[in-house]
Amino acid sequence: MLARGLAIDFPTIQADTDALEAARLLQSERLPGLVVLAHDGKPMAVLPAFQVARFVVPVWIQVDPALAHVLDEASADHLCDRLAGLRVRDLLPQEKRTDALLVRADNTAMEIAEVMEHEHSPLVAVVDDDGRYLGAITLFELLGALLPG
Amino acid sequence: MLARGLAIDFPTIQADTDALEAARLLQSERLPGLVVLAHDGKPMAVLPAFQVARFVVPVWIQVDPALAHVLDEASADHLCDRLAGLRVRDLLPQEKRTDALLVRADNTAMEIAEVMEHEHSPLVAVVDDDGRYLGAITLFELLGALLPG
Repeated sequence: MLARGLAIDFPTIQADTDALEAARLLQSERLPGLVVLAHDGKPMAVLPAFQVARFVVPVWIQVDPALAHVLDEASADHLCDRLAGLRVRDLLPQEKRTDALLVRADNTAMEIAEVMEHEHSPLVAVVDDDGRYLGAITLFELLGALLPG
Repeated sequence: MLARGLAIDFPTIQADTDALEAARLLQSERLPGLVVLAHDGKPMAVLPAFQVARFVVPVWIQVDPALAHVLDEASADHLCDRLAGLRVRDLLPQEKRTDALLVRADNTAMEIAEVMEHEHSPLVAVVDDDGRYLGAITLFELLGALLPG
């Protein structure tokens, strides 16, 4: 049970795509995350869904969550306006490597599960030896393969 | 835009339910996580989907991920057998509070987004002042409400 056999067709998005459009894709398709492609068409990152929540929360609230209480609702209602004009690449974590959720075609189910657990992501992208996109694996495919019939 | 208005019907599972059954529910319904109820019928925890991946990965691999390479596929294929006999409560994190993903009915969209981001979960459960279950909110409901039309 290797990554290449578990991979499914899964939508991708370009790093230069508008962040608002990316959030809409995630929401309308109820995706567990976004597979982000670089200029060369190869995956450069996977954004787990929870990281999209991060970008509707201002930094000053991330630093002091108690401040979320004092933000009035009208402000909150329009926070996604902040995404307008940003691109997907602006949403990628700056403080860590972005390729942690790319797995190789010959990775085992166990390696994939380990990556998902470690990165807190129910989604990985599968790439070949040249970094080309082969598809994605969600936790649902993984469990479907691992769970006893 | 408060939690009570964003909450949707969402399946729950008892803490005493077999862990294998819980993993099957998550997989078959493609849920972003599990809302776990205590004996009194009140939510006691939310398990984000990635934490279910955690329990198919043996602790010795979590400590040294390189060991995932040496695990032969046959072993990996039967790892979910380890879930048999365990209950959902055995899957809850031992090292942290389990109620971090329970939000109050009057929490704002911003507070909910902050909790999702902080806890790396696209799912929260909403409870009333007495801790009773009112429903759940996924990142999809949150984005659906926050994103400009």
